[in-house]
Amino acid sequence: MAWLRIALAQLDLTVGDIDGNVALAQDAVRRAEAAGAHVLALPEMTLTGYPVEDLVYRRTFAAASRAAIDPLARNTGELIVVAGYLDHDGGPRNGAAVLHRGAVRARYYKHFLPNYGVFDEQRYFKPGTTVPIVRVHGVDVAITICEDLWQDGGPVAAAGRSGAVLVLVINGSPFEQAKSDYRRDLVARRAAEGGATVAYVNMFGGQDELVFDGDSMVIDPAGRLLARGPRFEEALIVHDLELSPATRHDRDEAHRGITVERILLSTDELDFPAQPVSGGVVEPLAPAAEVWDAVVLATRDYVAKNGFESVVLGLSGGIDSAVVATIARDALGADAVHVVAMPSAYSSGHSVTDAEDLARRQCLHYSLVPIGEVVDAFHLALKESGGIDGLAAENLQARVRGTLLMTLSNEHGHLVLTTGNKSELATGFSTLYGDSAGGFAPIKDVPKTLVFELARWRNERARMRGETEPIPLNTITKPPSAELAPDQVDEDRLPPYDVLDAILDDYVERDLGREDLVAAGHDAATVEKVIKLVDTAEFKRRQYPPGPKISPKNFGRDRRLPITNRFRDAAR
Amino acid sequence: MAWLRIALAQLDLTVGDIDGNVALAQDAVRRAEAAGAHVLALPEMTLTGYPVEDLVYRRTFAAASRAAIDPLARNTGELIVVAGYLDHDGGPRNGAAVLHRGAVRARYYKHFLPNYGVFDEQRYFKPGTTVPIVRVHGVDVAITICEDLWQDGGPVAAAGRSGAVLVLVINGSPFEQAKSDYRRDLVARRAAEGGATVAYVNMFGGQDELVFDGDSMVIDPAGRLLARGPRFEEALIVHDLELSPATRHDRDEAHRGITVERILLSTDELDFPAQPVSGGVVEPLAPAAEVWDAVVLATRDYVAKNGFESVVLGLSGGIDSAVVATIARDALGADAVHVVAMPSAYSSGHSVTDAEDLARRQCLHYSLVPIGEVVDAFHLALKESGGIDGLAAENLQARVRGTLLMTLSNEHGHLVLTTGNKSELATGFSTLYGDSAGGFAPIKDVPKTLVFELARWRNERARMRGETEPIPLNTITKPPSAELAPDQVDEDRLPPYDVLDAILDDYVERDLGREDLVAAGHDAATVEKVIKLVDTAEFKRRQYPPGPKISPKNFGRDRRLPITNRFRDAAR
Repeated sequence: MAWLRIALAQLDLTVGDIDGNVALAQDAVRRAEAAGAHVLALPEMTLTGYPVEDLVYRRTFAAASRAAIDPLARNTGELIVVAGYLDHDGGPRNGAAVLHRGAVRARYYKHFLPNYGVFDEQRYFKPGTTVPIVRVHGVDVAITICEDLWQDGGPVAAAGRSGAVLVLVINGSPFEQAKSDYRRDLVARRAAEGGATVAYVNMFGGQDELVFDGDSMVIDPAGRLLARGPRFEEALIVHDLELSPATRHDRDEAHRGITVERILLSTDELDFPAQPVSGGVVEPLAPAAEVWDAVVLATRDYVAKNGFESVVLGLSGGIDSAVVATIARDALGADAVHVVAMPSAYSSGHSVTDAEDLARRQCLHYSLVPIGEVVDAFHLALKESGGIDGLAAENLQARVRGTLLMTLSNEHGHLVLTTGNKSELATGFSTLYGDSAGGFAPIKDVPKTLVFELARWRNERARMRGETEPIPLNTITKPPSAELAPDQVDEDRLPPYDVLDAILDDYVERDLGREDLVAAGHDAATVEKVIKLVDTAEFKRRQYPPGPKISPKNFGRDRRLPITNRFRDAAR
Repeated sequence: MAWLRIALAQLDLTVGDIDGNVALAQDAVRRAEAAGAHVLALPEMTLTGYPVEDLVYRRTFAAASRAAIDPLARNTGELIVVAGYLDHDGGPRNGAAVLHRGAVRARYYKHFLPNYGVFDEQRYFKPGTTVPIVRVHGVDVAITICEDLWQDGGPVAAAGRSGAVLVLVINGSPFEQAKSDYRRDLVARRAAEGGATVAYVNMFGGQDELVFDGDSMVIDPAGRLLARGPRFEEALIVHDLELSPATRHDRDEAHRGITVERILLSTDELDFPAQPVSGGVVEPLAPAAEVWDAVVLATRDYVAKNGFESVVLGLSGGIDSAVVATIARDALGADAVHVVAMPSAYSSGHSVTDAEDLARRQCLHYSLVPIGEVVDAFHLALKESGGIDGLAAENLQARVRGTLLMTLSNEHGHLVLTTGNKSELATGFSTLYGDSAGGFAPIKDVPKTLVFELARWRNERARMRGETEPIPLNTITKPPSAELAPDQVDEDRLPPYDVLDAILDDYVERDLGREDLVAAGHDAATVEKVIKLVDTAEFKRRQYPPGPKISPKNFGRDRRLPITNRFRDAAR
């Protein structure tokens, strides 16, 4: 048997920041060299960040990405580095370059271009058809990219058939709930199919609505999890693998349109070290923990990568703004978080006391800006036009708050965090330019029931660690209310949140229509009410700020519906 | 020679409104029958409207589309009807059904699925590989859909090789400037390639950011334009064609993966009528006229299809709001248009007098709501938090206006029209939730220089017709200003609009990078300033309301860039 020491680098790349990404890659190279690794795999599109969307079409951007491969290659010695980048070869390519001894020794172009959910790669890239198999210390190692791993009979199978015993897969695989388990099963299935150990490396960090969770891993053909990296954080996973040496070097036949290209880098087989290095196996995260870590990382990265140093948000005393404030504190530290209570005539007493309580528990910058006189000034200004009441007067309060937050943002340079949750976004239960105003919406993809669960879980974690619970108990236990009219509670207008979220899950995530929803056991009248709310709120969603995807189908890149849409499934 | 009387129906379909679309189709069937037509072609996706986006995934929607074909078929007699619909056959299909004597006689599935610009069809549809050739009164007629026409050596060529002498192409082809000329050349090229007359039918009407312009036409293999329908309006184009009768009925070989399916509907050849019917040739529209008609139709349809009956907008006395008010009046009539002047301390005297003048010229509902006291109330409310000035104070005025308009919308049910132009949207020269607030933005894709051109053209048209010029001369001639600070003009912060728009055209539409822009003759320092403005305004564009695409690349479906993007081409 021969062996290799492999290194997998979980890096937090930034779209467009080629210099910064190269610096991260070079730092990983230095650390992998220091650890004595033979091969280092960096994430998909290492140099450009991912996804770059229409930057693909900018000639100067593609040229900068290609040009950055050379200095990175020049700094390589014996360590073999696999780096992702944007190439151009008869069309734009999602590429991987194999760097060794100062030069590019092989290139791979992603074969399977995902074009569903959040992905639009058939818009951007031309697919490749060749798999490079590089011989490293006598071991045949194949390279593939992300979606290629998801295909039965794809490049991994082709590489295995051609004798590769190790397949390096570089990824830009966004987080969604429970995907980590699925990913592990997938890597194991593919390792079995190819008869090769699969080393999977994924980026981490936030990119607009996507958050990448790391979760790099190594699984052998028998399905054994040999190493697994942490989630949502930086890591260099270094692991020694005992592998069969290459026994043949045939000219390979193309199979199902996939050809193999062989590159000899080094043929000397090494003896397995007496004290092999293990990358370790990080334990999986609990469901609430992985969502929390995802939204915290997404918020931290959106703020930092867009050049902000602080955030501001309105605190209503309710659960949503309390959870968002806590996410912001965990992401940025208390000193970067500014919270404002903006009570109106209809705000309950506890709305301010609960907000103050939360700010005190978390040491946030707190201010109180009552909105009554501003609202009165609007009423007065509109008196001659016939005055306003009802919904217009309710929304006005929310818009005064939105304007106050945006004004504080302009004056002090804070990013405004939007506090709406997914149930609200789904049903349009928010005011455009009011509570929906802001630059980033951390719980945009979190249903209300899960918001409660996260609050309880976060308090529980604090208790376990002997810390102050960040969220006041009253905020968690009182009935949710928008407080825009006297004695209002959410259930006046919406079904109870457990009922609502169950229907939304089936309507939005699973795309069931009215008759299928009723067949699934939901109450027909409630289904019709919810469908109508969801369908007619598309215009609000379109103007909502971005927020991290945590579900299989978020509002935004995943779910793309027209605003002008007369299909009323409920009415049939 | 044999002949056929064909009818092409330009219909204003609505996405999701299957019942309404079927009714429009049935009305076209009745009119085509009354005109003695043998074949009627309806637009792409007749039954569902286009594009339906993720409605494709809703089982109940796809089932409703398929189910609606049957009643439409049942109502057909001798007239052969080609209707577009959403089918499901091993996957969702962009389909066309050939209906005759009460039944579906053939089906076609679009072969080429556009996946660029505003199109995402590879996300949604499975491509077809077969072309039906139906024999009608002894003439072989082939069916294809939209993008199939754009392909050299595609289905049209295959149909021609197999003896079709007439190809019906059903389309959902969105307007952009100068596309009509291109389309005519394309149809002629394809007719020559296939050696067949091409009859092209396109829908008209607005669908969110897309506006379809009709422009149906018939061109023979020699490139002669035999008939051409009007732009942006309803039409049934009926035209008699002398065509070669079918001479063979071979079993056709598949060519380049395309197979031909032959269906015999009727073989009796007809004598060309003594007095043939001509569809006529409508003259092309001038450049300003086609843009005007596009934005007027888009606005009318967005308002109507989303259930509104009236609009409200702020009138500043400036050119943008004056043009939008005029578009709204042309789209909806004066009685449906409510305009509000909202002067602040920094508003010039002419801001109100020019607004009043415009409202009077167009008989719009006018009201005056000074914002000074509301702005003062905000300043007072924020005094304890340290007060505000500079940009925060400027934006506050815009946000007070945005809130007033949204409040009037909530109170009276008007849709708010947003008055921003493309130059502003490109450079972020607007206030989020301020002047960018609203439901629809008619000139979102119109650069400032073209806004001026449209204003002059519209006044000129009024003069020619002996009508009152709708836009006050002072509004057109005075220097543009946001009037958010004393004596402010736009050129304090932006390059002159002719310089700016030329750079934007090259940067946005043509995707040139910094070095290419400078090589194209633009001033380097100005290029760098403009690039920076455009790149850092992405977050504002993301929350902007929809507005009609009139250019080859609009902000929205066409140009898709990340918000988090550190690529600063200008800085290299």
